Amino acid sequence: MAHLMSTACSIKISSSYRPCGQPLNQDRTVLPNSFTIKTSKSPFKRLVSKGHRAGRSCVVLATAAPVSKEVSANPRSGSDRSPNDSSKPQRVMVIGGDGYCGWATALHLSNKGYEVAIVDSLVRRLFDHQLGLDSLTPISSIHNRLRCWKAITGKTIELYIGDICDFEFLSETFNSFEPDAVVHFGEQRSAPYSMIDRSRAVFTQKNNVIGTLNVLFAIKEFREECHLVKLGTMGEYGTPNIDIEEGYITISHNGRTDTLPYPKQASSFYHLSKVHDSNNIAFTCKAWGIRATDLNQGVVYGVKTDETSMHEQLCNRLDYDGVFGTALNRFCVQAAVGHPLTVYGKGGQTRGYLDIRDTVQCVELAIANPAKPGEFRVFNQFTEQFSVNELAALVTKAGQKLGLDVQTISVPNPRVEAEEHYYNAKHTKLIELGLKPHLLSDSLLDSLLNFAIEFKDRVDTKQIMPSVSWKKIGVKPQTVPAN
Amino acid sequence: MAHLMSTACSIKISSSYRPCGQPLNQDRTVLPNSFTIKTSKSPFKRLVSKGHRAGRSCVVLATAAPVSKEVSANPRSGSDRSPNDSSKPQRVMVIGGDGYCGWATALHLSNKGYEVAIVDSLVRRLFDHQLGLDSLTPISSIHNRLRCWKAITGKTIELYIGDICDFEFLSETFNSFEPDAVVHFGEQRSAPYSMIDRSRAVFTQKNNVIGTLNVLFAIKEFREECHLVKLGTMGEYGTPNIDIEEGYITISHNGRTDTLPYPKQASSFYHLSKVHDSNNIAFTCKAWGIRATDLNQGVVYGVKTDETSMHEQLCNRLDYDGVFGTALNRFCVQAAVGHPLTVYGKGGQTRGYLDIRDTVQCVELAIANPAKPGEFRVFNQFTEQFSVNELAALVTKAGQKLGLDVQTISVPNPRVEAEEHYYNAKHTKLIELGLKPHLLSDSLLDSLLNFAIEFKDRVDTKQIMPSVSWKKIGVKPQTVPAN
Repeated sequence: MAHLMSTACSIKISSSYRPCGQPLNQDRTVLPNSFTIKTSKSPFKRLVSKGHRAGRSCVVLATAAPVSKEVSANPRSGSDRSPNDSSKPQRVMVIGGDGYCGWATALHLSNKGYEVAIVDSLVRRLFDHQLGLDSLTPISSIHNRLRCWKAITGKTIELYIGDICDFEFLSETFNSFEPDAVVHFGEQRSAPYSMIDRSRAVFTQKNNVIGTLNVLFAIKEFREECHLVKLGTMGEYGTPNIDIEEGYITISHNGRTDTLPYPKQASSFYHLSKVHDSNNIAFTCKAWGIRATDLNQGVVYGVKTDETSMHEQLCNRLDYDGVFGTALNRFCVQAAVGHPLTVYGKGGQTRGYLDIRDTVQCVELAIANPAKPGEFRVFNQFTEQFSVNELAALVTKAGQKLGLDVQTISVPNPRVEAEEHYYNAKHTKLIELGLKPHLLSDSLLDSLLNFAIEFKDRVDTKQIMPSVSWKKIGVKPQTVPAN
Repeated sequence: MAHLMSTACSIKISSSYRPCGQPLNQDRTVLPNSFTIKTSKSPFKRLVSKGHRAGRSCVVLATAAPVSKEVSANPRSGSDRSPNDSSKPQRVMVIGGDGYCGWATALHLSNKGYEVAIVDSLVRRLFDHQLGLDSLTPISSIHNRLRCWKAITGKTIELYIGDICDFEFLSETFNSFEPDAVVHFGEQRSAPYSMIDRSRAVFTQKNNVIGTLNVLFAIKEFREECHLVKLGTMGEYGTPNIDIEEGYITISHNGRTDTLPYPKQASSFYHLSKVHDSNNIAFTCKAWGIRATDLNQGVVYGVKTDETSMHEQLCNRLDYDGVFGTALNRFCVQAAVGHPLTVYGKGGQTRGYLDIRDTVQCVELAIANPAKPGEFRVFNQFTEQFSVNELAALVTKAGQKLGLDVQTISVPNPRVEAEEHYYNAKHTKLIELGLKPHLLSDSLLDSLLNFAIEFKDRVDTKQIMPSVSWKKIGVKPQTVPAN
């Protein structure tokens, strides 16, 4: 891909050490200032950062050597609910654990007593550099994030930096960490990004499909009992004129009946890549006995979880730009800086939404109640439905309470989608497993708006308007011009 | 992919000139004996072989320069049925035109008066080398095939040798040839091949999905009126317990009704790649107004068409091996050499089948009656249903008539599939367009058996048994040991 590094290179990581919380200050260890790792083929290959329990700091190592196992002494262990072996905590690999949902999930699982490793190429941070975008919130390096987490909680999260499309790298992470469950957030997750140009469209499908195929092969080859928890999207279903079920639908046709995969109508190369993944995973469950849960997630809003709120260095990213930003988060940022809320087209587009605190809860529920061998289980992961117009009205009302002057404008819809349609999607299975939803309340909107106001000086209003068109995508590489 | 060349290399093509038919003998032109083309990245990039009308021979050029247009003087022009411009023949690009179905189709379309170009990387021939396989029939080089066709019919088929996953190459073919229709056979098309090892599984999906994405982008960018005729497979549907419709199914659910894409249940990485393609194409029809026909083809049998029978150098390939061979063709070869017919498992697996003479007829019907802009049209392309046991019985009976001693054995099923199941697939749309099926008759079986007997000295019986297991596929590169 022209927009990504594709030749051999070396990565130099500066380890600028900053104290994080009181415990770390009390027991500081000298860290190397920088190190260089030679990689081949992929720029994201084979950098392993291991936390060691000596003292309460962590040492960053450049190694792909096997890792000695450490058993958590934490009594609140995720192992409580492990069906296989209750004496040891479950080991959960979070692929894409440096991203918006992945980071919150990794901390939540670690806090719950699971042994957690993050696998991430950090390419999401590269996208920001390449497109000239930035999170509303300042986010620490993954290395500092993990040092901080260790300092505050005493818990180690292992870190494997590399690209899961590189099977050699992925194999080594599997054989090193030996996961009982893999949570797979490690995909290019923006629909607009996938519609920028041909190169990004191809990258999105190749990256997402091959990465997931590699994960499936790694499970089959190295950890056949490992439970795959894959993040899908409600966008796979599109907007059919009938109720959306959870993954399957029973069809009676010409006097016969069968329960079949729910028909998918994805509407971007990103959403399509998730449909491809779903089909590939379903096949491997049947053919190989893989156990998998597909979490068809709605649009996530919010930024704080119990864990990311513990320290500013644990703060999660919040995207408000036209490429990675999603409806509700973006509206709150727009309201905070006095930018009109940008409703695409008629605003009747209705989707499922959920609080990021429910994302982490749902993933933990899926891990704690794993799919059976050979089962391809699909949960629709959202808590409420809203139309874009309904969200704009809610944010307007909440903003006015805070004294903000909130306007709404309709902008030409950059997407190809129905703007007025039927939408009724089922979402009972996670509730049945114990999900306690955080519904969108006035207080949450207040909190999110206040959060946006706190960081409003970091807002770059040039990032807000949609810059990617579903119809105008072409083969020429698109760049973001400096304004 | 470890099993394909992936670094820069040069290709040396020996142009061993052999006379083909009387017309060529009468008007021979000296051809260069060999030439070398430097390529970068892909070994299949940018070799353009152009037929020139001077004299009645053809000159092979190594160039990617724009091609001057030549208008066929043939009165039986495919343009008769062109909806847009009846004064010029339609220009049809056949991607994968050196393969089993592609070659027969390219000749048929050329014979019908279409202006034809073949785009092919020839990687199918490389697979044979790598796996130690060979066609039952001796097949000429693509260069000699096209020289022969020219010599016999006076018709030129342009040849672009390269990989459609290389968008620069594909762009140049589009801008050079300016197709009105693209027939896309250019995919890795063997389910067992895709199940050999991880590398081939990943290759199959990457090659097929990215190649098709590139074709879609090329149409959008360079030839937006161009009609895409994509070869899908009946295997995309799997074996549901309800009737299989042609692409879509109307579902009534909880009091509401919608017509949705027919649910897919593919059962190999190859079949899955075709499902991915179908979903990607459907999206671009909706988002960009692409006009596309998806031909969900059954299992093809037979080898001769009107055109490939004209000269031995036009002879089509016939695969009987465990990787590329398909049920009926393989059974005929087995009967010819006295090898037991190999029924996988219980033999109740039922599929749609068609004669290769109907493949070429169907494709021509689709081109002559194109989809409308924005339409994603799906036809089920087969003429009859058979179970494997039924085919074995038919071949046994036909073989006995020819004095052959035909035995049948059941071998462990290497696939993961239902061996006894309901199967009723609709296939009326191509009939409505005018398809006159060649049903499987005693005479066709006689002919196919006699053909197999003619070439039986070329049979390598070690190739016959299935060597690929759906359950045993692993990450280690699989090789074919020399016996």
